Amino acid sequence: MAVYTEVSDEALSAFLCDYDIGTAVACKGIAEGVENSNFALRTTAGDFILTLYEKRVEVAELPYFLGLMDHLAGQGIVCPRPVAGRDGISLRRLQDRAAALTNFLPGVSPRRVRLEQCAPLGGALAALHVAGQSYAARRPNALGPAGWTALLERSRAHPDAGSLRPGLLDELQAALDCVLAAWPAAGALPQGHIHADLFPDNVFFLDGRLSGLIDFYFAAFDLLAYDVAVCLNAWCFEADLSFNVTKGRALVGAYDAARRFSPEERAALPVLCQGAALRFALTRLFDWLATPAGAFVTRKDPMEYVRRLRFHRTAADAAAYGI
Amino acid sequence: MAVYTEVSDEALSAFLCDYDIGTAVACKGIAEGVENSNFALRTTAGDFILTLYEKRVEVAELPYFLGLMDHLAGQGIVCPRPVAGRDGISLRRLQDRAAALTNFLPGVSPRRVRLEQCAPLGGALAALHVAGQSYAARRPNALGPAGWTALLERSRAHPDAGSLRPGLLDELQAALDCVLAAWPAAGALPQGHIHADLFPDNVFFLDGRLSGLIDFYFAAFDLLAYDVAVCLNAWCFEADLSFNVTKGRALVGAYDAARRFSPEERAALPVLCQGAALRFALTRLFDWLATPAGAFVTRKDPMEYVRRLRFHRTAADAAAYGI
Repeated sequence: MAVYTEVSDEALSAFLCDYDIGTAVACKGIAEGVENSNFALRTTAGDFILTLYEKRVEVAELPYFLGLMDHLAGQGIVCPRPVAGRDGISLRRLQDRAAALTNFLPGVSPRRVRLEQCAPLGGALAALHVAGQSYAARRPNALGPAGWTALLERSRAHPDAGSLRPGLLDELQAALDCVLAAWPAAGALPQGHIHADLFPDNVFFLDGRLSGLIDFYFAAFDLLAYDVAVCLNAWCFEADLSFNVTKGRALVGAYDAARRFSPEERAALPVLCQGAALRFALTRLFDWLATPAGAFVTRKDPMEYVRRLRFHRTAADAAAYGI
Repeated sequence: MAVYTEVSDEALSAFLCDYDIGTAVACKGIAEGVENSNFALRTTAGDFILTLYEKRVEVAELPYFLGLMDHLAGQGIVCPRPVAGRDGISLRRLQDRAAALTNFLPGVSPRRVRLEQCAPLGGALAALHVAGQSYAARRPNALGPAGWTALLERSRAHPDAGSLRPGLLDELQAALDCVLAAWPAAGALPQGHIHADLFPDNVFFLDGRLSGLIDFYFAAFDLLAYDVAVCLNAWCFEADLSFNVTKGRALVGAYDAARRFSPEERAALPVLCQGAALRFALTRLFDWLATPAGAFVTRKDPMEYVRRLRFHRTAADAAAYGI
């Protein structure tokens, strides 16, 4: 959860003068997204989400993200659509930060994933990938395989690295070496715009239907099937960290029905899943070391992804995921 | 800001079955209130605020607070009105916590108080006091003068008390002795239900009009004029901690026009203001000592209220506040 910056009523009024959406009726900081400050804004014209971009987001990359959301929404994907000011510009400034308004999407994120939500998620992900094919901008995936070695080194170099459970860094290093050696070459699998962080808290459902995909601030141009691997990690493990192959089959099956996997993508699924588990294990590990134990923030346990990684290392082929 | 407890979509659906307000369309944790978890809930029937009461609130006291809000709203005060379930009960349980729904109030809290907001605030406070006269329940003010000595002792006994600026505890003790010696007897001034925490972030304005009073979880039965003293502290000091007598006059004048001060209340205003400044200095001081310096929460500086206290100790009579 977030909300780092407060928006004064006067600054908000001035900000809204540049739009054609009436005046503020209510504005509440909401616990959505982890990198930015988000507000549920009601104006006399309707409901919006106001986002102030905090320092972890590169302002130079915002046009890529906002352009992608605008493009996808234009293709019928249920994602936040930037609302432009009277001058046609959607990336603006508020409280000394980059800021943007998007439309409000109804729906509630699942806290615990239910089987019947996995097929809609798979279908929506495929639709996102197809709709993204016509978006021309590019952003390399900073948290893709090219960044993982440096991530692991940063944790190893941390003064508290000695407090980690014995063998953990070596286990991650060995897995990383295997994953990088087996990683598909850029041209070998279909590429496109991926969400890269499509966890359940970034997906809304309403009346049993998927009603929104949010938080595109990790999106990048990368292997499409890697995005499926992220979702298999995020949606198909139970609380005891066992893999639910029925959920996997529903997710991957619905994806494949909407955008057919190539044989190479199928074959690569186990290593892509290992890579996705590694990516979250590595970022969580670093955040764990960087966050004081007494701090009032929830530290996400990196071991949850180390255990997923161990499962994926036992997967012989795509059949392990139900396909 | 808060949001300590997460509400699962399934638990929310089950919770709403006990009400007659449709099904959930959206539910977002909001940064409102400091003691509880609050959610902006939209259902097919409208907008509501869902509150889960966290451990700092005594469940046994919730009927007093909810009853007071219901009573005040029934008298036309713009405050959250509890929404009862089908069985007529508004205090319920959700995620293993006491929980209640209230209606949604439009408006935005002022970040910086403007002069023209002080008269509406004074008038609304007087109306709250008058409307509360017919509410029969009682709650003693745990953070009133009877609790201040113990509060100061808790800070003095804290292991880190030695880190406070030299002389601070003695200054507070001397002020406390003076205040308690001069404090009006219970029967000497009009009593009633006071909000006791009516800071700008608990007041909404919309189109220049006061549109809501929220967060009644410090409300108690106490001296009415003490509530005015809290507001003088919270609304009428500038960022440099100088007292703005024009704001004071607007606040107190509008209050007095709606509920006439007795001569005894006027005479007591300086000591009541000293007491109110002490109350916030003492709770902030204790929270300061109890919060680790590295924690990711904003520690409110107790000195801001020590400096207000110094101003009030120079006030000869109510004229210092513009009346």
